[in-house]
Amino acid sequence: MRLERLIKGVEEEGLDAYLVHGSANIYYLTSSTGGGLLLIREGEATLYTPGLNYPMALEQVEVCEVSSYPRGEEGLFKAISGRLREGESVGYNTLPLSLYRRLREAFEGVELRERSELIWRMRRVKEEGELELMRRAGRLADLGMEAAREALRQGVREHEVAAEIAHVMMREGAEGLAFQPIVASGYRSAYPHGGVTDKRIEQGELVVVDIGATYKEYRSDITRTFIVGKPSQRQERIYNVVLEAHLKAMETLKPGVEAREADDIARRVISEAELGEYFIHSLGHGVGLEVHEPPTLSERSEDVLERGNVVTDEPGVYIPRFGGVRIEDMVLITDSGVERLTRFEKDLDAVMI
Amino acid sequence: MRLERLIKGVEEEGLDAYLVHGSANIYYLTSSTGGGLLLIREGEATLYTPGLNYPMALEQVEVCEVSSYPRGEEGLFKAISGRLREGESVGYNTLPLSLYRRLREAFEGVELRERSELIWRMRRVKEEGELELMRRAGRLADLGMEAAREALRQGVREHEVAAEIAHVMMREGAEGLAFQPIVASGYRSAYPHGGVTDKRIEQGELVVVDIGATYKEYRSDITRTFIVGKPSQRQERIYNVVLEAHLKAMETLKPGVEAREADDIARRVISEAELGEYFIHSLGHGVGLEVHEPPTLSERSEDVLERGNVVTDEPGVYIPRFGGVRIEDMVLITDSGVERLTRFEKDLDAVMI
Repeated sequence: MRLERLIKGVEEEGLDAYLVHGSANIYYLTSSTGGGLLLIREGEATLYTPGLNYPMALEQVEVCEVSSYPRGEEGLFKAISGRLREGESVGYNTLPLSLYRRLREAFEGVELRERSELIWRMRRVKEEGELELMRRAGRLADLGMEAAREALRQGVREHEVAAEIAHVMMREGAEGLAFQPIVASGYRSAYPHGGVTDKRIEQGELVVVDIGATYKEYRSDITRTFIVGKPSQRQERIYNVVLEAHLKAMETLKPGVEAREADDIARRVISEAELGEYFIHSLGHGVGLEVHEPPTLSERSEDVLERGNVVTDEPGVYIPRFGGVRIEDMVLITDSGVERLTRFEKDLDAVMI
Repeated sequence: MRLERLIKGVEEEGLDAYLVHGSANIYYLTSSTGGGLLLIREGEATLYTPGLNYPMALEQVEVCEVSSYPRGEEGLFKAISGRLREGESVGYNTLPLSLYRRLREAFEGVELRERSELIWRMRRVKEEGELELMRRAGRLADLGMEAAREALRQGVREHEVAAEIAHVMMREGAEGLAFQPIVASGYRSAYPHGGVTDKRIEQGELVVVDIGATYKEYRSDITRTFIVGKPSQRQERIYNVVLEAHLKAMETLKPGVEAREADDIARRVISEAELGEYFIHSLGHGVGLEVHEPPTLSERSEDVLERGNVVTDEPGVYIPRFGGVRIEDMVLITDSGVERLTRFEKDLDAVMI
């Protein structure tokens, strides 16, 4: 059981107590969707949940005790402060800054130690049950991308395309959007995090569509770049460079590979095409209960890929005022390489509107 | 100009520098949607933005200098640490915990002081330009609620209702959902934060629908509770008690009123109906660039309402295994009372399916 593994890890680290914050972590460990704080101490765990979510948590949680506190941080502080003592060594994964400060002030002798790796080393490696949900979340993102391709045409507004994406993903089973969608057209496609506006899409524009679904708490993430009309030579060249970088990086992904090596391979393809200065973000990131999780696929990453990681492979080239291209799939690291969890087509033909 | 007002506030507080974190605050002060950190010092401001958002920030920001840092907190730390000195008094609104700790360790003499009120006292009072956007966001939420009423019927799944809501709001202009929607039916309507599942909606059930739209960065928030079929006597009674609490609280909202007084009035109506133990959250909260902002309308709030506040009025009654009712509007505090920014009908007749 996940919680038992964490409790064991806390003991092995020699910590007197451990505080788990963050609704994804709470869900992962207890099945509660109501947030709060999980306190581990002397081999036992207690979930402190905000009062308004207490009845729901009682139904959802089977692995530990559930206690409630009046909403607001004051209530949470009071609930847990009686369970810590001077001079103890208390680990945490993360905490709201104000709660951290209150705890430090109240317990001068308490050592608060960041030990988020205790949780991440578990969450980073997906179990089969999680993968079933992530496959479904990936499939929903593919359906959303298909809706985008159908909606995209000259004159339509970015938010109208996003509406069709959301509609299909949620109609087919998503409980929500994994993140604020991106439909960035024309000059806006050069903004990696361009969001959605009321801009009309024009003939000849690049349109970066970056979307994801949430399915039973698990997220997906896919990006395709469409071209409205026949691509110019420059658009075609950039598209094919990004596609090559994406594919070359994907070929390298397997257990034991350093994450920065995958980033480096994509970066080299783009640099050799003399577009290196326009690849202004890292290659990818882990996905799971959150849309950005470890491992990180970047130049400075120290992560090594493991079987069971789910990561994105998403190189991009962004040329100010001209436009941008990003191609992203979410993949599972398997023994032999990868299993694609998003499968929408990505050849140039498939993205020409 | 907002940034100038903040700079003046920083000087009046006697702070040597001030750090602004949080993408809503950054947007409010600089028009950048790319996040990062804003540093104020000696009457000048610099926005440090992640490298991937630098080209976008250059287009968006006219009020201060923009600098970029390599993505990740290490880069941000390096970018700003050269601009602080030992012994200074540095205010902040909030910071990521790990950045706070790095700063403390690097500058033993630096006093880091929480001064979020400097920003909140501005953001809490909406300007006319903001209100135009919030009126539109409210109208979009009304359209979403109309879509919910049309989609709700026996046998439909919660996520299918949510799909229609998202579709209409985004088609009509929302760039996204203000928050993960709630469509909680039957026993699940007793969970105030019940989210959306694949549960089918059955005849006779209460269905709490809590949704909001994002329009040009501003959020809206509305809740209605529908009844599929003819309400039982108990459902009708609970509905009318919650509606009375909602209306009585709304009558009290105006400048100068203590926020806790409004909460108290709603709570008294519900307690007099002997349902007080089932009103398990506070009456409301501010809304703006974020869906939960100051002021807080709760029992322990010390906020006093001002002209220009936008707040929710959302009492609820949640009876485990029976179901729940919540009725919420988002309103603007005006000189004489309130202007409703969400206007969907709320009489019992209007919510019977």
